[in-house]
Amino acid sequence: MIKIAVVGTGNVGRFAITNALAEEDVELVGVITRKKHDLGIAGTENIQIAEDITALDVKPDVAVLCIPTRAVPETAEKCLNAGISTVDCFDIHGKIVDLRAQLDKAAKANGRVAVTASGWDPGSDSIVRTLMQAAAPKGLTYTNFGPGMSMGHSVAAKSKPAVRDALSMTIPLGTGVHRRMVYIEVEQGSTYEEAKEQILADDYFCHDETHVIAVDDINQLKDMGHGVHMIRKGVSGGTHNQILEFNMTINNPALTAQMMIASARAATRQNPGCYTLIEIPVVDYVQGEREDLVRKLV
Amino acid sequence: MIKIAVVGTGNVGRFAITNALAEEDVELVGVITRKKHDLGIAGTENIQIAEDITALDVKPDVAVLCIPTRAVPETAEKCLNAGISTVDCFDIHGKIVDLRAQLDKAAKANGRVAVTASGWDPGSDSIVRTLMQAAAPKGLTYTNFGPGMSMGHSVAAKSKPAVRDALSMTIPLGTGVHRRMVYIEVEQGSTYEEAKEQILADDYFCHDETHVIAVDDINQLKDMGHGVHMIRKGVSGGTHNQILEFNMTINNPALTAQMMIASARAATRQNPGCYTLIEIPVVDYVQGEREDLVRKLV
Repeated sequence: MIKIAVVGTGNVGRFAITNALAEEDVELVGVITRKKHDLGIAGTENIQIAEDITALDVKPDVAVLCIPTRAVPETAEKCLNAGISTVDCFDIHGKIVDLRAQLDKAAKANGRVAVTASGWDPGSDSIVRTLMQAAAPKGLTYTNFGPGMSMGHSVAAKSKPAVRDALSMTIPLGTGVHRRMVYIEVEQGSTYEEAKEQILADDYFCHDETHVIAVDDINQLKDMGHGVHMIRKGVSGGTHNQILEFNMTINNPALTAQMMIASARAATRQNPGCYTLIEIPVVDYVQGEREDLVRKLV
Repeated sequence: MIKIAVVGTGNVGRFAITNALAEEDVELVGVITRKKHDLGIAGTENIQIAEDITALDVKPDVAVLCIPTRAVPETAEKCLNAGISTVDCFDIHGKIVDLRAQLDKAAKANGRVAVTASGWDPGSDSIVRTLMQAAAPKGLTYTNFGPGMSMGHSVAAKSKPAVRDALSMTIPLGTGVHRRMVYIEVEQGSTYEEAKEQILADDYFCHDETHVIAVDDINQLKDMGHGVHMIRKGVSGGTHNQILEFNMTINNPALTAQMMIASARAATRQNPGCYTLIEIPVVDYVQGEREDLVRKLV
């Protein structure tokens, strides 16, 4: 059994708890959160809750870090130094290589494994992108997100003075171009025009086609569904017009959490060091004996 | 540079030659064939052609075995014993585990790598199937082939006494069910009814919806295009209705050959032993330095 602790009880953390409980080869040995209240998740009644991972009665093999991206470098290194392997969902594409180098050092120094940038993009999409590149080395891959809620854009819109609450939907227009549909509650004492102007001036929105729509209640619009459409049209050797396509329509935090649990399993199957998902054999993400999996899946 | 020899000059072998010549980190050091004639492939004028791989002036790192599936076990083992790593496109799903065990022994004894069951199914599809299983561990995956020509079914139809030539198209009907559209030239002295009866009685056809159509000239119908539609609807932890989908429309031997060249590259990056494609990190199939690839593809 792989002993896992889930760190963080936001959307992804709550799904990671549920998903860990559903896996036959995983034992949830603790949840790390500063909130004292009951988790309200079926099956967690006897799971230890602690503020610090080193306070758990049973030392986990892997810490699944469902925490804000910016907290990952410090928290992951702390876990590795405590002799616990880590999985994170760090999602700032441009900074993954640096984080990988930092965690690789800490992981090797402690004989542990760090799996970084897990989830679906970066994550499972990265695996598909890499496979497409191998199958047709020349050409273009487009990753089209949505329709679905963008956490980053929603937070950016909500931060404006004239906005009380916001939800930003990402709408794929093809060839990696996206429309932003921003639903807002206007702050009392402000106008819709002020809110719209503030949002459209933000760097998150000024490069894309953005529509701002005032509504009475943002909560009525929330839906964790998301999706992706990846397409590569490329060349295999001398052969043009090779078309490969990957689509998903999924619950966003549930899939993120599932890829993180799968990555935790994979962590127990790698040599010490830090890995992104494209650096791990896909068979290592799946429960079961390798020879059985080869028989069933190849 | 990775030194490669292509063994066999059938459809897949000819594309493997062209594709190897297109790769910047690959050097084609020889083609193994019993046919003496000029290959008629641009760029091969100065490539050594030999009947036996041990006769090449430059010893290859990897032999890319574009040969009939049933010849793979013996030929691969012979190459490994000669100190040459191998890639094959063995495609009898039920016998892959046994071949993997056989080649693993020979590869380890010689400090070499065997990549088995490369191509697209088994091959790149296997990677996607495994990833889908990791992302949604419970549920159903359907692999739908086509529309495209089935080599095995075409050969089976052609073997009937009343059939002079045949081409069997695989048409996907969804949920892994396929229709067979069998185009035939009727043998002189035989009737269409005889040909149809012989085909429908064959084990290759009697389980599927099969239509037999007489034509004047099979050669006018040949098209190497093929495709696949894989779909999984499954459960991530407690979350149902997670839908993942993979589509390709490709030149069949060109993609098979490309995955084999990518597997040859990967062979040079693994420890001695035998691997199916799901057992190799996807990044290892792609040309370039690992850190650069992580930066670009994750």
